[in-house]
Amino acid sequence: MASSLPTRDEQVLDQRALDVLFHSARTANGFLPQPVSEQTLRDVVEAMKMAPTAMNALPLRVVFVTTDEGRARLIPALMPGNVAKVESAPVTAILARDLEFYQHLPRLFPHAPQAYFDNARANADEASLQNATLQAGYFILAARAHGLDAGPMGGFDRAKVDAEFFPKGTSKSILLVSLGYGDDSKLYPRNPRLDFEEIAAFA
Amino acid sequence: MASSLPTRDEQVLDQRALDVLFHSARTANGFLPQPVSEQTLRDVVEAMKMAPTAMNALPLRVVFVTTDEGRARLIPALMPGNVAKVESAPVTAILARDLEFYQHLPRLFPHAPQAYFDNARANADEASLQNATLQAGYFILAARAHGLDAGPMGGFDRAKVDAEFFPKGTSKSILLVSLGYGDDSKLYPRNPRLDFEEIAAFA
Repeated sequence: MASSLPTRDEQVLDQRALDVLFHSARTANGFLPQPVSEQTLRDVVEAMKMAPTAMNALPLRVVFVTTDEGRARLIPALMPGNVAKVESAPVTAILARDLEFYQHLPRLFPHAPQAYFDNARANADEASLQNATLQAGYFILAARAHGLDAGPMGGFDRAKVDAEFFPKGTSKSILLVSLGYGDDSKLYPRNPRLDFEEIAAFA
Repeated sequence: MASSLPTRDEQVLDQRALDVLFHSARTANGFLPQPVSEQTLRDVVEAMKMAPTAMNALPLRVVFVTTDEGRARLIPALMPGNVAKVESAPVTAILARDLEFYQHLPRLFPHAPQAYFDNARANADEASLQNATLQAGYFILAARAHGLDAGPMGGFDRAKVDAEFFPKGTSKSILLVSLGYGDDSKLYPRNPRLDFEEIAAFA
């Protein structure tokens, strides 16, 4: 997928791209009846997986719910306010963390000594949570970068989703993200943001 | 900052932008002696803060360590393998979560009933961890989008960083991210990634 490294001056995105990713993008609250191609979903994952995780551990797992049967399994776990969004979304991604991600480390981080892998296993709960959540952030922006609107949802019954979609017990859901082409007529007014000085300082 | 919403066809980033964000970008392991402007750091924060968090809570806090005095306070908390990277980086960002983020919710999420704010306060530890970590993912990609190379580091003594930089005890560090213009001669070989089928499934 990768081209050669861009030169320094080529590494700043233009305003249009910054708008698509950050400034103009909005959290979708409803979707147009327009399908999302499987290739687009694959491209989102191929982009997301390139961004950094500790020890290149890549613990995020994704179930793309794209069928009526899949939605019928997911909807009972939703908070009532999220049902219409998922029903209108051509895709809802269940983002989860693989608690046994460390099994892949000898392949993903091949130069490290065994002690690193043992340590990852001992800290698998915390490490999978931190790194899969970082990857959830990458996932949302990768979806936007591929022309999709995203509707992340934390309001769902994780135990129900895990029992239904991850019955082996080795993955735990962290976030749902509806994906599609947003219906702008369903957008809420944009909420205010903190000022720079409320977020950041210099030392 | 925002321009008008791009039309649908304009919402897919071109391959160059996808390369800058994901496919060609690399985790920096050393930096060129080239400063980062304060305006660039401000632009990164202004972009990052627009991406979604639950209840628009925006719990991420950032301390940009840009001075020799700041680095001298940070370096004792680093794992030995990260010292050279931080010493060579014009900026190292300390990313932290504000445990009292809920104090801003009546302004940031003004239409919600008080019960939402009470619930956020009751779940402030988990909510600040999840949402600030999502924002850490946005931050890394926002840095890349503004032409910077990023070197995220989880290997540091969080208690030492918190005591030194967050003595009030209301913020807790989650990640360090060195920022600057990467010295490509210091890059490690790229590690392999999981295949799509190891990450994702359809339902």
